[in-house]
Amino acid sequence: MEAITKMQDARDALTLRSGRLTKLRAIVQEQGLYGFVIPRSDEHLSEYVPASAERLAWLTGFTGSAGLAVVLTTRAAVFTDGRYVLQLSQQVDRANWECKHITEDPPQAWIKANAPSGARIGYDPMLISEKGLARFSSPDFTMVAVDQNPIDALWSDRPPVPAKPVMLHPIEYSGCSAADKRAQVAKVLREELHDAAIISDPASIAWLLNIRGNDVPFTPFALGFGLIHADGSAELFIDPAKVSETARAWVGNSVSVSGREAMAPALAGLSGKRIRVDAGGTPVWFADTLRTAGASVVSGSDPCLLLKARKNSVEQAGARSAHERDAIALCEFLRFLDQRGASGSETELSAAAKLLALRERAPTFRGESFPAISAAAEHGAIIHYRVSEESNRALGKNEVYLIDSGAQYLDGTTDVTRTIWTGPDAPPQHLKEQATRVLQGHIRIASLVFPYGICGSHLDAIARSSLWQAGLDYDHGTGHGVGSYLSVHEGPVSLSRTGRPIPIESGMILSNEPGYYLSGAYGIRLENLLLVQPVEMSTSKPFLQFETLTLAPFDHRLIEPAMLERSERDWLNNYHQRVLEKVGPHLDADTQQWLADACKTID
Amino acid sequence: MEAITKMQDARDALTLRSGRLTKLRAIVQEQGLYGFVIPRSDEHLSEYVPASAERLAWLTGFTGSAGLAVVLTTRAAVFTDGRYVLQLSQQVDRANWECKHITEDPPQAWIKANAPSGARIGYDPMLISEKGLARFSSPDFTMVAVDQNPIDALWSDRPPVPAKPVMLHPIEYSGCSAADKRAQVAKVLREELHDAAIISDPASIAWLLNIRGNDVPFTPFALGFGLIHADGSAELFIDPAKVSETARAWVGNSVSVSGREAMAPALAGLSGKRIRVDAGGTPVWFADTLRTAGASVVSGSDPCLLLKARKNSVEQAGARSAHERDAIALCEFLRFLDQRGASGSETELSAAAKLLALRERAPTFRGESFPAISAAAEHGAIIHYRVSEESNRALGKNEVYLIDSGAQYLDGTTDVTRTIWTGPDAPPQHLKEQATRVLQGHIRIASLVFPYGICGSHLDAIARSSLWQAGLDYDHGTGHGVGSYLSVHEGPVSLSRTGRPIPIESGMILSNEPGYYLSGAYGIRLENLLLVQPVEMSTSKPFLQFETLTLAPFDHRLIEPAMLERSERDWLNNYHQRVLEKVGPHLDADTQQWLADACKTID
Repeated sequence: MEAITKMQDARDALTLRSGRLTKLRAIVQEQGLYGFVIPRSDEHLSEYVPASAERLAWLTGFTGSAGLAVVLTTRAAVFTDGRYVLQLSQQVDRANWECKHITEDPPQAWIKANAPSGARIGYDPMLISEKGLARFSSPDFTMVAVDQNPIDALWSDRPPVPAKPVMLHPIEYSGCSAADKRAQVAKVLREELHDAAIISDPASIAWLLNIRGNDVPFTPFALGFGLIHADGSAELFIDPAKVSETARAWVGNSVSVSGREAMAPALAGLSGKRIRVDAGGTPVWFADTLRTAGASVVSGSDPCLLLKARKNSVEQAGARSAHERDAIALCEFLRFLDQRGASGSETELSAAAKLLALRERAPTFRGESFPAISAAAEHGAIIHYRVSEESNRALGKNEVYLIDSGAQYLDGTTDVTRTIWTGPDAPPQHLKEQATRVLQGHIRIASLVFPYGICGSHLDAIARSSLWQAGLDYDHGTGHGVGSYLSVHEGPVSLSRTGRPIPIESGMILSNEPGYYLSGAYGIRLENLLLVQPVEMSTSKPFLQFETLTLAPFDHRLIEPAMLERSERDWLNNYHQRVLEKVGPHLDADTQQWLADACKTID
Repeated sequence: MEAITKMQDARDALTLRSGRLTKLRAIVQEQGLYGFVIPRSDEHLSEYVPASAERLAWLTGFTGSAGLAVVLTTRAAVFTDGRYVLQLSQQVDRANWECKHITEDPPQAWIKANAPSGARIGYDPMLISEKGLARFSSPDFTMVAVDQNPIDALWSDRPPVPAKPVMLHPIEYSGCSAADKRAQVAKVLREELHDAAIISDPASIAWLLNIRGNDVPFTPFALGFGLIHADGSAELFIDPAKVSETARAWVGNSVSVSGREAMAPALAGLSGKRIRVDAGGTPVWFADTLRTAGASVVSGSDPCLLLKARKNSVEQAGARSAHERDAIALCEFLRFLDQRGASGSETELSAAAKLLALRERAPTFRGESFPAISAAAEHGAIIHYRVSEESNRALGKNEVYLIDSGAQYLDGTTDVTRTIWTGPDAPPQHLKEQATRVLQGHIRIASLVFPYGICGSHLDAIARSSLWQAGLDYDHGTGHGVGSYLSVHEGPVSLSRTGRPIPIESGMILSNEPGYYLSGAYGIRLENLLLVQPVEMSTSKPFLQFETLTLAPFDHRLIEPAMLERSERDWLNNYHQRVLEKVGPHLDADTQQWLADACKTID
């Protein structure tokens, strides 16, 4: 009976979405367009978007975090990357939508192949950056900005735009007053002869003004736009209902606060000025509006990016505290898994819920920093697996279990992955060896000393060399930047071959997460966060090293000691010793005893 | 007396050069120009240039292999990179010439600062690439191409343009007929819809037509230009006196041979065609001339580059033979050094001469592949040291001696560096440790296995990580491509952080040469050549590994075994075992005994 209802529901959803597509086509044609582009992004082009901005999901049913649809008069397609192609084909109605791999079969070529020469294709200039739009540049069709997104006109039961109150991020966590931060940004602008800069990334606004929010899941920022001038004054465009009197006083007299409707007039007043706009991170609407107003648009990265990435000493201390707090929950969770993982009565959902409950006890806990990846056996091989009621499965005996999770605390953001062998038998030798190679990659990064000037793209291979030696590899970057009670994925630096050519600097927080995945069988990933620190060497050249922030044991059942080089063994024993010393005193006697065993020295 | 003569000679040279500068300024002014740019490069933009093209040295006295002069009406400057700044200031007349670091103080900014707004600055379009010229693009002055280089008009005792006979490079060394190579290039052109490509690099012409030459030192190519069409036919523009009837028959009927004067008319005939030109490697004269002729200039890398870099099985076999032959000379030389290095009677010059004499015994030897760097003690810290009669010094006791040298054999090109402790005492511990770290970097590269898709910029850090751990580093790339009886520095792939994003491929030959330099004291560098090979792994993904071509022991006095990881020790012992097995049988009994000792297993 329930199955029949579900099928009926599914059919109803298809009919509903098919109707939406028909209506969208009608509006698009009325506007004299042959097609329309619907990106997944919201107007801040950020990773987590509010429900009110899930236009792609509303239209197509596809809920992946990266994607783009193109609707033409006779055909329509959804494009996504390798992580989501399977999910895409499961979620959309294949009768209406073609499913495409965005790099193998890019939208521009698809439009060219399926639209008549000279076709006019519409887009919402608030949902695509100038660089993003440039990818659609073609002699074969014309991209046309529309004033009103046709989806918004059709979407009658659209969830309300989030309007959670702006929260203060006090100096005890930020370590630097907003006035000082504005002065730092203003100095950058003056040095580069810019009169002002557009700040469209809410994480940058959060950092700049020492505010936080609750408008989207996982990232504690308040949605809004900003404009900062070379004199250090700023304008914040945000729903005024979100800004209490206390918050308004907090941002200070040099920061004006007004609603989104004030933004276009403010830009119109910048005629003759040189305005810095991040061409890859800001909706093209800003550059268009500024140019129309007679301003000179200068392409330049968001001036907050690097300043935000370099955590100050207070943020660094906060990160250490947050990680020690997180470690208590983690160690208790790992003991719980050790005792219950093979019982057959725990599931991916129950395990994730257990870890969340352990974290929630901390008064400074504010939520998860991303949806936990709680993945038993073959689910672990799906790199961005997200457990649901449908996909949920029990943890079994003698299986690999991977959990990648993180928390937002008032003083810092965490992100950690551990891979566990549920037992009770010893794991097969090939698995132990693969996991040890992943661990070697992790250790080689963690123990690295390197000079100033090195970028993430130069170091990524070091995390892989042990896996490579066995013909293994992993199809993701080695690490990403992490914010301070802010985005768990923070630019501009990453440990990745495709990372930007920006040197790693002291104070940056980066994840270190090599892995190995055997499709249909299991996934292995070992992730700690690293804090970049200067290190005194005998030479005059400035050198850097990593301080590992995350404190939780690696499952010794998945380590083959004979494979470790001496220096790797030393690193591991020192790390486990540190975990025991830092976390042990906060645990009850039994968990402390368990931790001592989990952290025992390897010969 | 001799000293006085020398001083008089030096003063005469200054007066002579000062006169040249005055005359150049007069011609430049007559042409309505405010200044003139004189690059070091010749019209092939290659590393080694014939004496007839040493315009920069003739004008300024500076003989470094990279540099550029700008002569304005009232001021003049020479620009070079960090390797040569000291040499520059010693060689030029500081009264007439300012000495500049080319990246810290770029010529464009210097012209802007020293020329009136709108100044016309001349250049010879045969001596600069389109990309090189673009660096001079400025709203403050105009770059003007001149038809006749004013230096050539002034240079009365200019050495003759080289006209050595073209030599055949037979199939037993090339492994592939010129017809097949032309077909390969033509296929690339057709795939990319190019009608023809300009080949301005004589190394590419040498590869393409299976010819060699002797026009410049160290690189056995014949100076000339080429044009290859999408049908596989080609035109070679070269002094016809260099092409014997045999050579003309060898290049075949599909390749026309004519003098340089036929080149402009040939380009003029390409109206309406799409012609591929390497914007960074070809003089801008070509693109200018083609555009004037009504051809469409398409920017694209020299189509021979990648094909030439991937050595075929015959070239690979040739490389192995050449290295085994080179190893005999090297091992005999190392024994000689062992016996004579601390005697006080050998010098940098005599040692280099000894090695050359040992190499010259091979009938296939055709010369050195670059000027040997024979550097005792503090000279070793000068990365591009070139010993002269003036700089020559004796090898002393208990010193570091570095020799970086290479040979051209008919079947392959070698390039090898060894660093020796002359003894008789043991080296200081810090030196031994530094040399061991350099060796670790060398071994970590040599023993690497990596997937297809990896570029040199991803691997460079692996050669440095052990040095970094001690706060040490080296200020040069880890390795460069090497040709097959051709350029010792061959593109497009290098093991360098600044290397191009081109994947390393099977068949490429790369140097592996980490180092450490203590200014004023010594230099350490350990260099072998590597041949990239596919390696079968259990996974389906294609993986690559390095086969070390060079066969010569590393000085065990400079190795601290306790610092080596087990895998590094294993690599070293296996390598030395291989050296002994491959080279030993070709040596006399005493040298064989010496080699056995030099290759003894380290515990």
